[in-house]
Amino acid sequence: MSSLNLDDFTDLIERPDGGVRRDAEARRERQVVPPGSLGRLDDLGEWLSAAQSAVPVRPVVRPRVVLFAGDHKVAELGVSARPAGSAGELVREVLEGGRPVSVLARRLDVPVRVVDMALDCDPETLPAEVAGHRVRRGGGRIDIEDALTPEEAEAAFRAGMAVADEEADSGTDLVVLGDVSVGGTTAAGTLVAALCGTDASVVTGRGGLPIDDLAWMRKCAAIRDALRRARPVLGDQLQLLATVGGADLTAMTGFLLQSAVRKVPVILDGVVTAACALVGQRVAFRAPDWWLAAHDSGEPGQAKALDRMAMEPLLTQGVKVGEGAGGLLALPLVQAAASLAAELPTTADGEAVTDGE
Amino acid sequence: MSSLNLDDFTDLIERPDGGVRRDAEARRERQVVPPGSLGRLDDLGEWLSAAQSAVPVRPVVRPRVVLFAGDHKVAELGVSARPAGSAGELVREVLEGGRPVSVLARRLDVPVRVVDMALDCDPETLPAEVAGHRVRRGGGRIDIEDALTPEEAEAAFRAGMAVADEEADSGTDLVVLGDVSVGGTTAAGTLVAALCGTDASVVTGRGGLPIDDLAWMRKCAAIRDALRRARPVLGDQLQLLATVGGADLTAMTGFLLQSAVRKVPVILDGVVTAACALVGQRVAFRAPDWWLAAHDSGEPGQAKALDRMAMEPLLTQGVKVGEGAGGLLALPLVQAAASLAAELPTTADGEAVTDGE
Repeated sequence: MSSLNLDDFTDLIERPDGGVRRDAEARRERQVVPPGSLGRLDDLGEWLSAAQSAVPVRPVVRPRVVLFAGDHKVAELGVSARPAGSAGELVREVLEGGRPVSVLARRLDVPVRVVDMALDCDPETLPAEVAGHRVRRGGGRIDIEDALTPEEAEAAFRAGMAVADEEADSGTDLVVLGDVSVGGTTAAGTLVAALCGTDASVVTGRGGLPIDDLAWMRKCAAIRDALRRARPVLGDQLQLLATVGGADLTAMTGFLLQSAVRKVPVILDGVVTAACALVGQRVAFRAPDWWLAAHDSGEPGQAKALDRMAMEPLLTQGVKVGEGAGGLLALPLVQAAASLAAELPTTADGEAVTDGE
Repeated sequence: MSSLNLDDFTDLIERPDGGVRRDAEARRERQVVPPGSLGRLDDLGEWLSAAQSAVPVRPVVRPRVVLFAGDHKVAELGVSARPAGSAGELVREVLEGGRPVSVLARRLDVPVRVVDMALDCDPETLPAEVAGHRVRRGGGRIDIEDALTPEEAEAAFRAGMAVADEEADSGTDLVVLGDVSVGGTTAAGTLVAALCGTDASVVTGRGGLPIDDLAWMRKCAAIRDALRRARPVLGDQLQLLATVGGADLTAMTGFLLQSAVRKVPVILDGVVTAACALVGQRVAFRAPDWWLAAHDSGEPGQAKALDRMAMEPLLTQGVKVGEGAGGLLALPLVQAAASLAAELPTTADGEAVTDGE
């Protein structure tokens, strides 16, 4: 296996096709309601057109939720409202249909794929297609040790890339990306603070299952300590992910970048996916053009990361449960934008819109 | 026919059942993710539960778009980007599937009902079920004359009530209410300014098909003149609607109030439905508890009216096209909230949620 060089992504990732976007805009000019009157949905439709390189835009018919799962030993410090090492339970509940993402996916008839990268449970207790990519059991306690060895980080990153390739090859036309983790928002907060050069307190939120003030202080201290370990390796994104990210966040970063290479648009969920996207932006500055921020979950680290990438979330419902649920809520809006862009009648070329005359 | 007394609505309209809402909240406490972690969707689910008087909440399976249509002679002043009297064209496009609301309704498989109240076209050119409720052809130029006679206003109000009864009787479990009008936002702006005691410029927006600065000034002047005619009749809502509302807005107000009597929840679309809701609130202060603001269209009059009713819009996509399109965009969120409230697993009574343990 040739060594992984993240710099390659800078060349491999192109922007969504600007010429196609201009064609989509020109077509939009001839539609029955004027450009801009559909607000953000006009933007969405043109973005999707450019991402698909298709005018008119094709409907989104094979979307998929992809969730990367992992435990983080930093949860042993009491930074999460959930017990350390319990993400495997959440994964089982997702698969059994008992989590918010499961309910929403069932409603919208969207399949959910869970990829175990570092759960702290017996892999035998999980379906083989879930556990097949795991690189280790749990991740190192990032306030005092690296989450992953360099070899594990490379394996996790490649696993994320492989999953992106599988999705692209199987015809998935849009991915809702999310995480299932315990301690993951602590790792995500550290990445965001490190890359934005801010203090731990700025990025420390309450997490999916809200924590109390004491747990918040422990989480803030853990991020502060992890930040000290992150800063020396800021220039090497894979090393940064190995130091403070963990296997699930590393895989998600690989997934995001390879999806951009493969031109599969991705809807981001909460702070964890936003942190991975921010790392991905450092790797390849054009990559965020392939991603969409679904919603503002209220986590301060997410807002910071999205702001840094100049991404505006579609929804502001304050959904904090993670696991791709917020991302799925935005899917109907994206599908509506695609329908409007494709199906609103157009006048013939050159003819002005004679709306209502 | 007994005379219409709007005061009766104060007694006829109850609030959504508070006891049921408390039961819904108690059930929510036992679900697998803590209350509040679904953000606004927790609110929505509990509201719908109370409106249905059912715990767990029933799914929304028979929603319907109801659009009231009318022409307003004030459009002859050049306050709209569309020619005066052309709303009939829009209605035909809606019915033929060529407007944004048609595209979205098709996508979501929601039927669209259009009710002509005062279109300025030959009723023979419209399907009988659309034209059957019309009370006059076009509405008076509200800057210099009443939109309707008192008899026409009562007939329009009763028509709106009758449509609400038909929907309730046929099993519609949620209505997305919208308007198809030319000049309607001028009437709506006048109602909002009159009821909020503000100046014309505060409520004058650009409308669905955006107008230029000169048209904006004409619209602002028309609202100013209409306001002068509205203020003396502020205390009598039916007279107010006859003076500056018009048949479509009068019918929508009757529809909203009777839907609240019949306990059918309604999603409001843009500034026109917001203005009617504001009139409805003056008639019966409990009525707005049955209505939901779908989105912020960017029209200043809408923001003013929603603020006065303490309603916060679900979406902020800046969709300006009207005709119920913005309301339909919010429907998937309401349906998602219902699914989550009904389908998320609960622990047994008395047992604490042991999420992830």
